[in-house]
Order: sequence, then structure tokens, then C-alpha cells
Amino acid sequence: MEYSPANHAAYAFFRSAFSIREAVHSTARIEAWLKEKNLCVSVMVEQVPLHALQQWEVEPGTGNIRHQSGKFFSIEGVRVKTNAGIVSLWEQPIINQPEIGILGILTKKINGLLHFLMQAKIEPGNINTVQLSPTLQATRSNYMRVHQGKTPLFLEYFNGEKPVEVLLDQLQSEQGARFLRKRNRNIIVEVAPDELPEIPDQFIWVTLAQIKELICKDNLVNMDTRTVISGIPFAPGEAFPEADRLSEAIAGKNNRAGLLLLNSLLSTATPVHDLTGLISWITRLKTLYELDAERISLNSVQGWHYDGTSWVHHLQRYFSVIGVNVSIGNREVISWDQPMIKPAQEGVIAFIVKEIGGILHFLVQAKVEVGNFDILELAPTVQCLTGNYREGVNEYSVPFISEVLKAPSDRVWYSAMQSEEGGRFYREQNLNRIVEADNSFPVEVPENYCWMTLNQLMNFIQYNNYLNIAARSLIAAIRF
Amino acid sequence: MEYSPANHAAYAFFRSAFSIREAVHSTARIEAWLKEKNLCVSVMVEQVPLHALQQWEVEPGTGNIRHQSGKFFSIEGVRVKTNAGIVSLWEQPIINQPEIGILGILTKKINGLLHFLMQAKIEPGNINTVQLSPTLQATRSNYMRVHQGKTPLFLEYFNGEKPVEVLLDQLQSEQGARFLRKRNRNIIVEVAPDELPEIPDQFIWVTLAQIKELICKDNLVNMDTRTVISGIPFAPGEAFPEADRLSEAIAGKNNRAGLLLLNSLLSTATPVHDLTGLISWITRLKTLYELDAERISLNSVQGWHYDGTSWVHHLQRYFSVIGVNVSIGNREVISWDQPMIKPAQEGVIAFIVKEIGGILHFLVQAKVEVGNFDILELAPTVQCLTGNYREGVNEYSVPFISEVLKAPSDRVWYSAMQSEEGGRFYREQNLNRIVEADNSFPVEVPENYCWMTLNQLMNFIQYNNYLNIAARSLIAAIRF
Repeated sequence: MEYSPANHAAYAFFRSAFSIREAVHSTARIEAWLKEKNLCVSVMVEQVPLHALQQWEVEPGTGNIRHQSGKFFSIEGVRVKTNAGIVSLWEQPIINQPEIGILGILTKKINGLLHFLMQAKIEPGNINTVQLSPTLQATRSNYMRVHQGKTPLFLEYFNGEKPVEVLLDQLQSEQGARFLRKRNRNIIVEVAPDELPEIPDQFIWVTLAQIKELICKDNLVNMDTRTVISGIPFAPGEAFPEADRLSEAIAGKNNRAGLLLLNSLLSTATPVHDLTGLISWITRLKTLYELDAERISLNSVQGWHYDGTSWVHHLQRYFSVIGVNVSIGNREVISWDQPMIKPAQEGVIAFIVKEIGGILHFLVQAKVEVGNFDILELAPTVQCLTGNYREGVNEYSVPFISEVLKAPSDRVWYSAMQSEEGGRFYREQNLNRIVEADNSFPVEVPENYCWMTLNQLMNFIQYNNYLNIAARSLIAAIRF
Repeated sequence: MEYSPANHAAYAFFRSAFSIREAVHSTARIEAWLKEKNLCVSVMVEQVPLHALQQWEVEPGTGNIRHQSGKFFSIEGVRVKTNAGIVSLWEQPIINQPEIGILGILTKKINGLLHFLMQAKIEPGNINTVQLSPTLQATRSNYMRVHQGKTPLFLEYFNGEKPVEVLLDQLQSEQGARFLRKRNRNIIVEVAPDELPEIPDQFIWVTLAQIKELICKDNLVNMDTRTVISGIPFAPGEAFPEADRLSEAIAGKNNRAGLLLLNSLLSTATPVHDLTGLISWITRLKTLYELDAERISLNSVQGWHYDGTSWVHHLQRYFSVIGVNVSIGNREVISWDQPMIKPAQEGVIAFIVKEIGGILHFLVQAKVEVGNFDILELAPTVQCLTGNYREGVNEYSVPFISEVLKAPSDRVWYSAMQSEEGGRFYREQNLNRIVEADNSFPVEVPENYCWMTLNQLMNFIQYNNYLNIAARSLIAAIRF
């Protein structure tokens, strides 16, 4: 059996996801290392009025907040008109950052097993301060070497300067409720085993299985890592001799969830909808739903006001835009100012799954969000980032929320708190869940929901702007 | 062997594409019918100054041309900045028609063979006046029944009012050089064999094979038909008992082109790039290439002027925007005014194909066009709509143009003049070609070109905004 380059990548990912051989470090050691990194760094984040941020300015007239250099991002307003959902017209602040950024993970085989070069990265908004992050987070300007200045570590492996094998390279979207059409290039490259015998202190070699193990814990693995690994096509397929052995091993463990998930990836049983049907569903909704997102000045955003320090919603809902001064360092201290998004409260993202016709299906939501590049994206069954979903404070009901929050523990397959990206979002964390529906859960669903197998989701994830970042965050957590 | 719904559609399309049983009408009869329809209609198209068009107005200040009702489309200006290609900054008029339109073909089995309900449709810009068109061309307002008024024939089969089986349902782009982010829903539905025993006079039942036969002739099949059928996944696969018989039949005919094309769809040989590699190529170029298309007023477009009648380029290049009065009728005469796009000269679109590693590949171009929804789309090897490609009048050289125009006849697999959509484009036709490269043609190609098999192209065509309309027009012409 020969492996083509595609099979090579799939096979390498497969082995790394299931730790067939030994990883360089134990997962406990990696977690301890993250804690050490956390202890030896000091981070001070102090709130500062937006109008007093150093190197940022409030644009006269519009009130938009932008960096003096014109780089990074700006905070502007947006007026949204849509016929999807209950609210058909609203205005809100939004982050405008039109560049495509790079999220890159460098890998190499160590003892024949693919390891990922992960970084203990400090971000001002992080819960836990330091989270496990991709090898590289770079702006397009970094990547293109447009301007002089410090280039990020390992850039040369991602911009064609050094020879690598590209294992994954996808364009993926950011949060559509917060960013205007923002996308990042998600890329994984492999270098030869003899490359990089030494790595800097804040980096560590980790297998895919270990990253997934750490995603089971709260706020250890950052959003950038989760989105990059979510696209990994780790379906072993029949080509791999280990596939059978794996299925047996999972069966031996009496791991019902693991078996059903593996089955959802590999089964040849007939799904509820075939690919033509799924594409037809997406096409129909993109034709029916309108999304008109007009950029307006921050000053003119209805329903929001500047309270002298931050931009807030009149009823304190959703989120606020705050200003912070950040100081990071142990010996040398780096300090800067920036705006951040601070959520009003925690949110929930969750997939409900159900076995239908002998194969596990995910209940996918077609979600229209203001910043979406193409009207709607495929989202988890429940997605209310900073939504007022708690009983008593409901402004509107969230479909399927009680199935997610009230499921007995044997039907909760995955549950952890996970952070949004700590460079833009201030201590924003959401409950991430995968919940098995009980038998009475209907197969018939509203027009903006659809059942898909894991295999079908993994197919769509390859093409840009199909799965949203919340769906990808949950898929990253799946293991068998 | 059982056929799932997906297989059902693929199998029905496959049989219709290869006319295994008899069609209702011979192809000669269909062609004669089109000619008859052409003879018994009178169409007058008279040029009128844009400022004198009835029911249209020139917007004060901007000079934009729009319908008094606010419906249909408008002619505006656009300022384009890009780092792709040779010209990095230009301005031009553009059609703004933000709605998603519907292009629908109704099918049913007659004598067990899938037939397509085609329309002899008159469009003011058509060469040949009447061309073979989809069953339905509707605006979103028609489709949603937003306003009262005459609803188009057969709408009820496409908007959920009557039960149908959806065989194909894709969102596809229009001309990126002329339209701002315009897309249409391309949909094929099947009704039960006993439905529609009678059809109106201007409709006819045609098999897929016959449509493809007619595409071999100049300007008989309109662009809307070509784009809808281009998405048909007519790969038989091993599931169909007829597949072997077909291969043998083609082999028996000594049809080299047909065999190589079939092989490019079905072969399990390793293509030059796998799917991961192709998606990586697209991702890399979408990251590298910038496209900033800013809407500006028509009055302010640099390099163009209003000559008292039409909007024209200072050097008479590219196209002009003209006004026309249209009168159509035999007994009853319908008359209206509208703006149209008139090309400066004919263009060329062509795929160069080449056998590499035992499998036929198409040389695909990643093309950035001003109105593209997502920066670039996959285009034919050569695409110069109304380009000054002729020697002597070159303003810039078009890569691979001489291979296309100077190929000896045995390497020209397909060649015909085909029209752009006659509702917007005035007598615009382009030379459509598929040309086999000679042996010396390099496998190494510039960064914005890539080799793909027909199977790979047919995969991408399903996901929206991957293949542009020129590429789809050529794919529609492929038969074995």
C-alpha cells in the first residue's frame, strides 16, 4: 500500500490523533509546563478610557476608534437589516480588520509520530493568561514582509522561504457577530525530522491527541489552535491498517460516544441528506435570507452610548468596548494600549447529536450573523455568545437551549469552558458542549436547522466560509 | 444495486446525457423548432440615448442610471484596487443588481429518459433572437411573490408550492467584470411522469445529450442554460451498469477526446494535485491577492465619458453602456426601454487540456475580477472578454492565447461562438474553445494557474463562488 501526499497527511494526522507511539512529553507534563509559564510571567491589564488610549485616536466626526498608524484594527458601527430571525433591524459596534491573518502550526515527526510545535502565548484577554497557541500568529503585513520591523518567530516556514510540506491550508472565518467579514488563513506545515533540533523556551512539541486531551479542560487551548486543528481530516478510511485495530480498541473500552462519533465519520450508511440535498438547503436559505450590513460611524449607532470610559449598550446587554493598558513581562516589560471587547456575560455553544438510521448526526444551524462574509454559515445547534439565555432574563427564547443545559450527565459527551481569542476579547469564555439528544427528540427540525454526519461536516470545513468558528471550536474537541 | 436519492439524480442525468433511449424529438427537429420560433417573432431593438430611456432616470449628482421603480438593476461606477495582474488601479461602469435571481429547469422522465423543459426565449441582446433557455428565469421578487403582478410560468414548481424532487440546487456567480457580486440560484427539479402532459407553445422537451449537441453550434443555447447544466454531476461511477458499455462504445468510435475526458472524470490515477493541494493553492492566492472594489458614482468614473448617447471608454475599449428601446411581438407588441452592455469586440474563453501522468488535466486560471464575490474565481486558461487580444492591437499580452488560436484542428476539441446573457449584453459573443496542448507544452505553470482533472472541477463547481461563469460555460459543452 502506497500513500499519496494526501494520504500521507491524513495518515500522519491519524496517528498523531491516536498516539499510537509515545509522545515526547506526557500530557500532564505539558499542562504543568503551561502552569510554570503562567507563574513566571506578570501581566497587568488596567482599564483606561477609550479616548485616553496611547497611540489610538477617536476619529473626529465618526467617533470611530483607530490606531494612529492606520494598522491593526478599528472599532466602527454597523447597521444591520435582515429577514432572518426575530430582530430585523439593529445597530452595533463592530471590529473592522480587513486583512487575512495567518494562523500557522509547524509540525515534524519525532519518533515517527507527528508533533505540533505549540506556543505558550500570553494574550491580555486570556483567562489563565497563557494558553496553548499555534506556532505563528501573523498579520498579512508580517507575512508579506510589507514593512520592516521584528518578524515573528518561524515565519520563514510559512511564507515559502524554507521548504516544507503543506498538510492543511484553509481560509476560515472569525466571529460573525463581532468582526466584519474577518478571515484567517489556517495552515499546518511539516518539516523534515532533522530540522529544528532546538526550540525556544516558550515552545513545546505536542501530539494532536494531547491537544484534544487539553481541550477537555477549561481555557487551556486558545481559539486559534482550536480553529486550525478543527480542519484536520483525521478520518483514517480503509487505507490504514490501524483503523480496524482502533475500532476494536474503542469497542473494547465500551466507549459508546467514541464509537458513534467514529461511525459518523466512517459509516457507509445513508445519511438523512446527501451532499446534493445539503447544498440545496444552503442555496435555498442563502436565496431566502437577506443580510444588509452597512458600515456607519460609531457615533451614530442607535441603542449604544459612550459612558465616558467605554461603549456600552443602553440596557448593558451583549458586550461593551473597553480600553485597556497592558503590561507584560518578567525582566523586560512590554506595555501597550488597545481597545477590547468585553462580554456582558458567558454564552453557550453546543451541538446536539442523535443517531438516525444507524448513523450519528449533528444538528446544524444555518446562522445569519452581521459580519458574515456570505450571509449565513453553518453553526452549532445552540449558539448564544453572551446571550441572555438564563431563565428570568430572557429577551427571546433560544431554541434547544434546555436540551443542552438540562441534559443528564450520561448524555453530555463534552463540556468545557473555552475562551474566545484573547487579543481582542476580554476574558470572554463560553460553555462548549456536545450533548446526545434523548430518544424523544424530533427528527423533523425548523427550516434553518439540518442534520449532518461528522463526515459531511468535515467535508464542508475544507471549503471557505461554510462552518463558523463556534462550530469549528466544537469539532476541534472531538476525539474517540 | 439500489440507488440512493443522490444516485437517482446522477443516474437520471447520466442516461439523459448519453441518450440511451430515444428522445421525444430529434435534435434536428429541435433546431428547426428554434428557427421557426425565430421566424414568427419580430424584434426591433433601437438605440436610444441613455438620458431619454422611458421609466429610467439619471440620478442627479451621481449620474447613476436606475429604474424609476427602484427595481431591476442600476448602472454605477466602481473604483478597483488590486495587486493581482498588471493594472493595479482603474475605474469602470458596472451593473449593480444585488438580488439573487433564479435560473430553473424543470425535468421529467418520458419513456424512462429524463427530459428538460426548455424555452424558446427572446432576449433583446440575443444573436439569433431566440435561444434555448431554462424553464424559468425569475427575480427574487418573483420567486418570493413580494409584489403582485404577472408571475412567470412554472414558478410553482420552484418555490415549494408543488411537490418536486430537487436534482441540483447551486448558487453560481455571473460575470465578475460586468456585475457587482451578482449571483443566481441554479436549480433543476424533477416532476412525476404524469405531470404536465401539455406544455405551452414556446416550450419543448429536450434531453441533456441534445442540449450538449446544440452547444456545439453557434449561439443556440443561452448562457443561463449553459450555467445550469454545467453543474450536473454526470459522472456515472462504477455503480451504473451502463458505464462499462459506454466506455466501450466510446473506445469503439475511436474518439480520443471523448475517452480522455471520460477518463479525467473517472480515472483513479493520481492527479497533479490532490484536493488539499488545490485548496491550499486557492487559500494562498486569496491571501496574497487584494481586491478593493469601491462603489463610486458613474459621473466620477475616470477614463470614461458620456458621449450624449452612451457611456464609452475614452479609447473605445472594453465595452459601452447603451440605451435601447425594445419592441417584441407577432400579434400583440410589448415594448420597453433599458440600458445594455455592448462589447467593443468579440472575446475568447478557452481551456487548454493536457494528459499528465495518464490522466487529462485542465489548465485553470485563478482570476481576480472587479465584481467577484470572493477575490478570485477559477477561470478558463484564457479569458479575454472583449479583450484586445488580436496581434497589432495588443495593449498587453494574454498568456497562452496563441496556443488557443493557432492550434491545428485535430487538437481543437470544441470550438463555437457563444452568447452572453441577452437580457443585459447586446450581441456579445465569445469564441469558446477546448484545445489540447501539444507535447512541448510545459507542466510547470505560473503561480496563478493550476492543473485540475475534470473530476476535481466538477467537485468545486458544487460549492458556491469557486468556478466562474466562463469556466462553467465551457464545462457545459463537454460530452464524450
